[in-house]
Amino acid sequence: MATLKKKLQGLVAATLTPMTENGEINFSVIGQYVDYLVKEQGVKNVFVNGTTGEGLSLSISERRQVAEEWVTQGRNKLDQVVIHVGALSLKESQELARHAAEIGADGIAVIAPFFFKPWNKDVLVNFLREVAAAAPSLPFYYYHIPALTGVKIRAEEVLDGIQDKIPSFQGLKFSDTDLLDFGQCVDQNHQQQFALLFGVDELLSGLVMGATGAVGSTYNYLGKKTNQILEAFERKDFSSALNYQFCIQRFINFVVKLGFGVAQTKAIMTLVSGIPMGPPRLPLQKATREFTDHAAAKLKSLDFLSTADLKGRNLGACI
Amino acid sequence: MATLKKKLQGLVAATLTPMTENGEINFSVIGQYVDYLVKEQGVKNVFVNGTTGEGLSLSISERRQVAEEWVTQGRNKLDQVVIHVGALSLKESQELARHAAEIGADGIAVIAPFFFKPWNKDVLVNFLREVAAAAPSLPFYYYHIPALTGVKIRAEEVLDGIQDKIPSFQGLKFSDTDLLDFGQCVDQNHQQQFALLFGVDELLSGLVMGATGAVGSTYNYLGKKTNQILEAFERKDFSSALNYQFCIQRFINFVVKLGFGVAQTKAIMTLVSGIPMGPPRLPLQKATREFTDHAAAKLKSLDFLSTADLKGRNLGACI
Amino acid sequence: MATLKKKLQGLVAATLTPMTENGEINFSVIGQYVDYLVKEQGVKNVFVNGTTGEGLSLSISERRQVAEEWVTQGRNKLDQVVIHVGALSLKESQELARHAAEIGADGIAVIAPFFFKPWNKDVLVNFLREVAAAAPSLPFYYYHIPALTGVKIRAEEVLDGIQDKIPSFQGLKFSDTDLLDFGQCVDQNHQQQFALLFGVDELLSGLVMGATGAVGSTYNYLGKKTNQILEAFERKDFSSALNYQFCIQRFINFVVKLGFGVAQTKAIMTLVSGIPMGPPRLPLQKATREFTDHAAAKLKSLDFLSTADLKGRNLGACI
Amino acid sequence: MATLKKKLQGLVAATLTPMTENGEINFSVIGQYVDYLVKEQGVKNVFVNGTTGEGLSLSISERRQVAEEWVTQGRNKLDQVVIHVGALSLKESQELARHAAEIGADGIAVIAPFFFKPWNKDVLVNFLREVAAAAPSLPFYYYHIPALTGVKIRAEEVLDGIQDKIPSFQGLKFSDTDLLDFGQCVDQNHQQQFALLFGVDELLSGLVMGATGAVGSTYNYLGKKTNQILEAFERKDFSSALNYQFCIQRFINFVVKLGFGVAQTKAIMTLVSGIPMGPPRLPLQKATREFTDHAAAKLKSLDFLSTADLKGRNLGACI
Repeated sequence: MATLKKKLQGLVAATLTPMTENGEINFSVIGQYVDYLVKEQGVKNVFVNGTTGEGLSLSISERRQVAEEWVTQGRNKLDQVVIHVGALSLKESQELARHAAEIGADGIAVIAPFFFKPWNKDVLVNFLREVAAAAPSLPFYYYHIPALTGVKIRAEEVLDGIQDKIPSFQGLKFSDTDLLDFGQCVDQNHQQQFALLFGVDELLSGLVMGATGAVGSTYNYLGKKTNQILEAFERKDFSSALNYQFCIQRFINFVVKLGFGVAQTKAIMTLVSGIPMGPPRLPLQKATREFTDHAAAKLKSLDFLSTADLKGRNLGACI
Repeated sequence: MATLKKKLQGLVAATLTPMTENGEINFSVIGQYVDYLVKEQGVKNVFVNGTTGEGLSLSISERRQVAEEWVTQGRNKLDQVVIHVGALSLKESQELARHAAEIGADGIAVIAPFFFKPWNKDVLVNFLREVAAAAPSLPFYYYHIPALTGVKIRAEEVLDGIQDKIPSFQGLKFSDTDLLDFGQCVDQNHQQQFALLFGVDELLSGLVMGATGAVGSTYNYLGKKTNQILEAFERKDFSSALNYQFCIQRFINFVVKLGFGVAQTKAIMTLVSGIPMGPPRLPLQKATREFTDHAAAKLKSLDFLSTADLKGRNLGACI
Repeated sequence: MATLKKKLQGLVAATLTPMTENGEINFSVIGQYVDYLVKEQGVKNVFVNGTTGEGLSLSISERRQVAEEWVTQGRNKLDQVVIHVGALSLKESQELARHAAEIGADGIAVIAPFFFKPWNKDVLVNFLREVAAAAPSLPFYYYHIPALTGVKIRAEEVLDGIQDKIPSFQGLKFSDTDLLDFGQCVDQNHQQQFALLFGVDELLSGLVMGATGAVGSTYNYLGKKTNQILEAFERKDFSSALNYQFCIQRFINFVVKLGFGVAQTKAIMTLVSGIPMGPPRLPLQKATREFTDHAAAKLKSLDFLSTADLKGRNLGACI
Repeated sequence: MATLKKKLQGLVAATLTPMTENGEINFSVIGQYVDYLVKEQGVKNVFVNGTTGEGLSLSISERRQVAEEWVTQGRNKLDQVVIHVGALSLKESQELARHAAEIGADGIAVIAPFFFKPWNKDVLVNFLREVAAAAPSLPFYYYHIPALTGVKIRAEEVLDGIQDKIPSFQGLKFSDTDLLDFGQCVDQNHQQQFALLFGVDELLSGLVMGATGAVGSTYNYLGKKTNQILEAFERKDFSSALNYQFCIQRFINFVVKLGFGVAQTKAIMTLVSGIPMGPPRLPLQKATREFTDHAAAKLKSLDFLSTADLKGRNLGACI
């Protein structure tokens, strides 16, 4: 059943969770958010309640409601809505997985537990299997992000161990810079049976190593621009692909130096899309006015944002 | 109101959460557990749903039920029942804090959030304050455990910042080895207004630096033995205190080399107390039979466990 | 003067330092080593006394002699001989730099000091400048390897800061997996004035991001194979390039799991080249017989080593 | 022979290496330095060329000269002069060990090599043994400082493994905060055969756990003050001991927040002793004027430095 599902490919936006100034979730703008991704950014897949979506800062009931809203609003507009259901508590993770199946999500993703950390591949796969078993009909993705979880088990080991144990396994989000590890995953995937989604910003390096798609927060507002990398890569125009990659990196590198995280991504998305993302939830704190001003100036200097954008919101070219 | 509460002092057992073989919480033995701590181990304070209690592996509703059971069973038997209400989600942490107040717990403790990590003292204190505000009448303790959270902010900085911001603040559990930091906390606490609870096993070094009490998992089964350290320290008999400390360390060091964690603590507690603690919840895995056999042999060799214990459960001397 | 030097490009072998069974340097085989690299591996540049060469495990006088032997034996055979002169002591590093100039080396490379660690870009550049000033006529390369030094300063910051301060600066060896950082270096190098040498094994990802060459220990015995990646990349035949990359990764990944370091590289090089590299120096320890047997079997299974190789030493194809 | 040597005990000053403004070693003040330690600070043992002495930033010939000068100037004044001979190169470490024996040093200490890191106890002990064997007549000390070396092998394991392998082994400098590990070392040392020197600043916690002495940089200028801790501890006057400890910690904690290292220690020592320590060597950089002013003000506020001190240099009391 899972296997009938179209393979997840191309760009996947790791969605932000819009909030009101008083810290409640602002469900009212999610419909608009869906339209923006599809029409303005050319992005038709979403990864909901992940790191970018502050999934672990939400209560379980909030996570259910957010997932439901994305599935509802995305119907007939988005290709796939993948819900991150990872949690420190296996029970809560299972509850979220069951719920994702009930609402008709297209897949679930799970991060390694990171308070008590799995100390080897088998322990991790056992945990993931218990979550997957709560929604056996849903494509299952492993969300590999060692820098945040502190779980150092290599993705290629997990991929090797997971295939027999989790029938619904369909791929992974690889949010790490170890391309030897990623390359081994690709090498294992010679029949292209799995989606190997690159989850860090140096997309071109992932594409050349065999990534089948990419998940990221920048695709919320730089999706159209990033698609130019995919297209240039497809037609083997590497100098253009690299040029586009550098345009994006100039921006990322700039904001990284200012201090860049989910709070700042919310500010940038609000700026570029015009859709109010609101503040993050504690312990994150709202981006400073200074950050937003600098980021806006940089976006303009790179032609990522123009007066026209501020009306029509279509991203300009970066030459 | 919080200030009327008797100061938390002496030994505090970081309680385990008993589970059945199928992974459900075994509430039925908690009453027996209370009696064991009080009568056999001379421990009258408990720290519930912390690391040792697998608090973060439980669902919110399970955490509520466990807290309630300890408060109920502990009434008129335990001096203080402190509930750990820390969670990655501020909303859930607040819910647990409110619940702790409703059920009449004696205090709440909160760990620093550790997925999105506070990057300075103010961010951390702001988060803690929002939790404390949900239960303003309950004594509030900060649970400092940088090795597990990855939050490197020094405890003395938190102590310095928290006093004005959280009126119900009453102290901290210091689970770190940086005694310069701990010493600064003691130095700040010259009016003895706060409980500075040492949370690592080298108790004697904490006592000499001014700890007012101690929280730990070993006090579940070595409480009586550890009280000998406190008593020897009180009467300035350091060679005895150190001798007792070494007895305990020989055991800890032995099991640490076998691989020691909450799962293993459950096995040891079952062995020593005769109360079935059951398996841990994934990602933790049940201690191996081999571990339990080696630990039992070591306990006997140190006179921490004897045939008599296996009946009467009173701990023998370690000379 | 430095600027007249031909730019370092293509593959650069990080040379091993051959030793006798009793731990002395075996100078006698370096001439043979040069011929092997040039004739059998198609590698005409070497990086001497780096990590692979156990440079920091040698005495200063040994480092001088090893450098001298490579320069002498490489004359009219090798394109460039770059000497790593990094040391914890600035004075010793300067002595080695002066010596490299005296013997006519083609360049010097310096690692960040890593006992007392530079805490920002300026401190690091000040240190590097003092070394470069001891041999102003020699092309200077910064050896960026944060995982080994623990110095987290990004390469693009060093590149940005070093250009005015060190006239002889000609590029860097980038031994890290942060391709955002590497991409920024390439982006800064738009006039192609510097050599940006990729120093980790996932070469293809570095090439697509704009690497102008590569330095590595595997090029000692897989240079010919790796040149196939370069050639395929040049003609935009990515599937072949990736196929070659995977062949090599299968081997690297295999030995990494067995425990792979300089000692093991010496064993493999001895096996493949037939030139005795001998044991490493303490604290490294000779590769086990078991490792060597497994590695040999893997090399054969990948057609990296055949009976023919064991005579003629030419590497077979990996299809 | 080594065993005839009086056991190293009490306070050991980790000496600074005085330098001239142009970065050369200022041998001329070492005699004065010896007298200051003995007469003003009551410290009669020194640890030369260690971290505080920038030993690893000096050339081998400089290390030899510095060692020689301390032995010469210390004759009939100091109890023991221990020379740190650790180096990344085993050959150089052996040369320094032989030299220490020739000049009549009282012992040698060796840090774990930290570029290529020993991965277990045996590898580390094998390395140490090769150094010790170069000076078999000299008492040998292992310098345990995992935070700087990144070598995580526990001291108690090294102590356990080293006793049979190195006949001249006489103890260790324990520069870590893991008191469980330190306690195990003390427990192993029941016959008091070894010197277990505490190497971090929370001295009182080390004393209560059984330290036989202490090595540190602060004893250069706070030796007399620290001796008050030792004396109070001896007479079991813990509140005084803790009070003295806190006085010192207030200072350390203050400078730690300003950024505290060897460069800053040189500035403070110059200030307190009146002996010019000069700048550090790159990559360290001279303490700022601002640091020195703040530190001086703090020293005065704690009565560690008074107008009298600025003449007579005797440290005042801290009440």
